[in-house]
Amino acid sequence: MKLYETATAPNPRRVRMFLAEKGLLDQVEVIQVDITKGENLSPEFTAMNPMKKVPVLALDDGNYIAETMAICRYFEVAHPDTPNLLGESALEQASIEQWLRWLEFYFMIPCGMGFQHSTGYFKDRMTPVPEWGEVCIDNVKSFFTFLDQHLAKHDYICCDRFTAADINAYTTVAFARVIKVRIGSDQPHLQAWFDRINARPSAQV
Amino acid sequence: MKLYETATAPNPRRVRMFLAEKGLLDQVEVIQVDITKGENLSPEFTAMNPMKKVPVLALDDGNYIAETMAICRYFEVAHPDTPNLLGESALEQASIEQWLRWLEFYFMIPCGMGFQHSTGYFKDRMTPVPEWGEVCIDNVKSFFTFLDQHLAKHDYICCDRFTAADINAYTTVAFARVIKVRIGSDQPHLQAWFDRINARPSAQV
Ligand SMILES: N[C@@H](CCC(=O)N[C@@H](CS)C(=O)NCC(=O)O)C(=O)O
Ligand SMILES: N[C@@H](CCC(=O)N[C@@H](CS)C(=O)NCC(=O)O)C(=O)O
Repeated sequence: MKLYETATAPNPRRVRMFLAEKGLLDQVEVIQVDITKGENLSPEFTAMNPMKKVPVLALDDGNYIAETMAICRYFEVAHPDTPNLLGESALEQASIEQWLRWLEFYFMIPCGMGFQHSTGYFKDRMTPVPEWGEVCIDNVKSFFTFLDQHLAKHDYICCDRFTAADINAYTTVAFARVIKVRIGSDQPHLQAWFDRINARPSAQV
Repeated sequence: MKLYETATAPNPRRVRMFLAEKGLLDQVEVIQVDITKGENLSPEFTAMNPMKKVPVLALDDGNYIAETMAICRYFEVAHPDTPNLLGESALEQASIEQWLRWLEFYFMIPCGMGFQHSTGYFKDRMTPVPEWGEVCIDNVKSFFTFLDQHLAKHDYICCDRFTAADINAYTTVAFARVIKVRIGSDQPHLQAWFDRINARPSAQV
């Protein structure tokens, strides 16, 4: 299997960390795509993923799977217990999915949009609206506060154990540096959790 | 179980249609929340879902599950085959998740943001940026074109059968009326698929 990705980009990082936690990183051949140069906009790449985004997993049978969490789910279903990261019971699976969605809609996407709209980083391919970028950055700050309050009462994001929700929260907190949002000295619970996740070997891949 | 939802809103509609397809609609007591009046912003509602959105499922054991697809997954894991809507094999589950994410990020969310930012419908609780609303509406139009081209070659959104991806595509095409985007006379494949899905009893709940 081939994993088309970009080493410096936050979405692919979620997949690498997920695979590292499951001990499956050696199952994929990693191929770098230079998104700054627009290699993801080429006809060849668009044939793999019409949305023109990394990461994309190319299966040996010729099928492609785009989208971070779809790739993670492919590996989770094939290897459910190595360890389990997307939940076992119906309640666990639903709780993790709730958190993954909160993290994506109200944290990760505002972070990415805040970056793109305030800097014009991808203005060759989208229309930056700086005022919208500022709204997004404010939403990211509010989510930092929400996470700090939540982690005052919990060691992990959900289910009382390490799950994919911790991966997505951790990678997004780290990514927020690009919009100059960092953990505040008044957010000790978020900081302690971040340091714990940061110490895991998977955070270095 | 209680399902807090809003009959006229598109996200809850996805859950109702999902439950109707699985024959599980009678398992939940449906409770209406008036989001126009801001009932979802109350402390009581925020305690169930800190993101202040419908739908929310209240389980009999006191747990809450927010987020459309997390609620759907709860029922899918508990009743995987009545019929299956989120996939069986690893490849099917991943393909459906890929499509659900494409539909959510590049279609449903732009549709909702296009509506809120261009009309100021929720300006009591968010900052409308009209220029951003227009960008979102353009993205919705492009996605209609993409879907028409895709459905020229496929009877269903993915996996050659009816899945949750059809529910989410169908409810979003219907919702796009609020931003005055409708299936064009030059989009016969999208129209034929829409008519087929629209004829299912679950489309009327
Ligand atoms: N929803 C997608 C998002 C992927 C995404 O936005 N990837 C970024 C890198 S982190 C990208 O490809 N950007 C290049 C571009 O937008 O042209 C996923 O979860 O995989
Ligand atoms: N990501 C959420 C979105 C839910 C959502 O945006 N619901 C809308 C109704 S369709 C809502 O509650 N709006 C009220 C508000 O934003 O105050 C989900 O999938 O459940």
